[in-house]
Amino acid sequence: MNGVLYIVGLGPADERWLTLEAQHALAEAQDIVGYEPYVARVPQRDGQTRIASDNRVEIDRAREALARTQQGRIVAIVSGGDPGVFAMAAAVFEAVDNGPREWRELDIRIIPGVSAMQAAAARLGAPLGHDFCAISLSDNLKSWEVIEKRLEHAARGDFVITFYNPASRARPTRIADAFALLRRFLPGETFVGLAKSVGREKEEIILTSLEAVDPAQIDMSTLVVIGASGTRRIARANARDWVYTSRKAP
Amino acid sequence: MNGVLYIVGLGPADERWLTLEAQHALAEAQDIVGYEPYVARVPQRDGQTRIASDNRVEIDRAREALARTQQGRIVAIVSGGDPGVFAMAAAVFEAVDNGPREWRELDIRIIPGVSAMQAAAARLGAPLGHDFCAISLSDNLKSWEVIEKRLEHAARGDFVITFYNPASRARPTRIADAFALLRRFLPGETFVGLAKSVGREKEEIILTSLEAVDPAQIDMSTLVVIGASGTRRIARANARDWVYTSRKAP
Repeated sequence: MNGVLYIVGLGPADERWLTLEAQHALAEAQDIVGYEPYVARVPQRDGQTRIASDNRVEIDRAREALARTQQGRIVAIVSGGDPGVFAMAAAVFEAVDNGPREWRELDIRIIPGVSAMQAAAARLGAPLGHDFCAISLSDNLKSWEVIEKRLEHAARGDFVITFYNPASRARPTRIADAFALLRRFLPGETFVGLAKSVGREKEEIILTSLEAVDPAQIDMSTLVVIGASGTRRIARANARDWVYTSRKAP
Repeated sequence: MNGVLYIVGLGPADERWLTLEAQHALAEAQDIVGYEPYVARVPQRDGQTRIASDNRVEIDRAREALARTQQGRIVAIVSGGDPGVFAMAAAVFEAVDNGPREWRELDIRIIPGVSAMQAAAARLGAPLGHDFCAISLSDNLKSWEVIEKRLEHAARGDFVITFYNPASRARPTRIADAFALLRRFLPGETFVGLAKSVGREKEEIILTSLEAVDPAQIDMSTLVVIGASGTRRIARANARDWVYTSRKAP
């Protein structure tokens, strides 16, 4: 019997952003593998095995899912957001690349989902309406020099910039360093949006600027959006401003 | 009575990538507004008005949707992919910004969706697993010089690069120009993936390189992915290679 490994995107919050394809994969799976809070978001189903693990063990989790698939199980490895964007899909293929040759021939299917930047953008208006980039500020797996180089080119290229993994207890000053670097290339009034815990109870949206942003307001649940020269604010009388990036470049 | 304007992402193909939130908005809407092929993808419902228009009239379509919302209607303006990524949301806010002041106070809600690059990435493996950018090659609304600047910085920053709107009958040589520019900064063996009509009957996936890519294979239904230095291919015996971008930067 041949197994299947679904790599499933759950979206950034509750089931509102779950796709039909993701629902079908979760219903079909015999084993649900993932970081504990994501596994907890999958509806319980009789006979389904749930293997929840800690955050820092992506590769172990991927290997566990691949080994079960090799045994003929139908496995869903679940990921917040889109598994293809700074999430489990790359970890699974890293495990395949460095694992036994048979893993390469397994039936692996990636189920895309709404990523955090898209949910954040939806709350702000349309800041990703034109050319943009996404940068992970985590220096667990790459050097800070690589991140600095990417920040500089993103700024000089006049891209809208989104930050994933902007802060952690292990490196609390990195986000301030990143803003300081961007200030060398971008005007102080450049738009900065902080979208915290989007879609969850504690959701909080903060509109600020590169010169005024307070790094203390940024935690691991925050998606940071930095505007480009074409990013505009629309003032409203009784509500938060809308923010969008014009499709016309200056 | 107050209207609502939902800006709804339908995903890149059929209903498999539709979210629950999008389904609810489409069911609630009295008026469905959009580019004709997208409107055709919304299930027919009794009493619902459908206003389909041509591709080139985003702002007219946005104004129509806003005017109906102002009259108290519940309106869904539909978009392929994610409305926030090179799609209708920015056009709606551009119309708000330049329209009557009352439009600013309307109840507008953006429903994110799976964007074309995510569906393409899911077919290829996990090419967007690390820092990436998205660039529209359309020079309808920005100059080619701006596009060239962004391409250069995306390449020098070692980003994975995705192209939206890579080709059209009006500017058939632009995609070749873009590849020629990238070849000045990136090695010829840099991975290039072409994902055509993803999720549709004519779906076709082509794995190639910056030196070998054939611009004639690229049309408006193609999402182009260009690898970074960390992008790897996993050879398989009986199937297309997997492609992923390592989370470890060199």
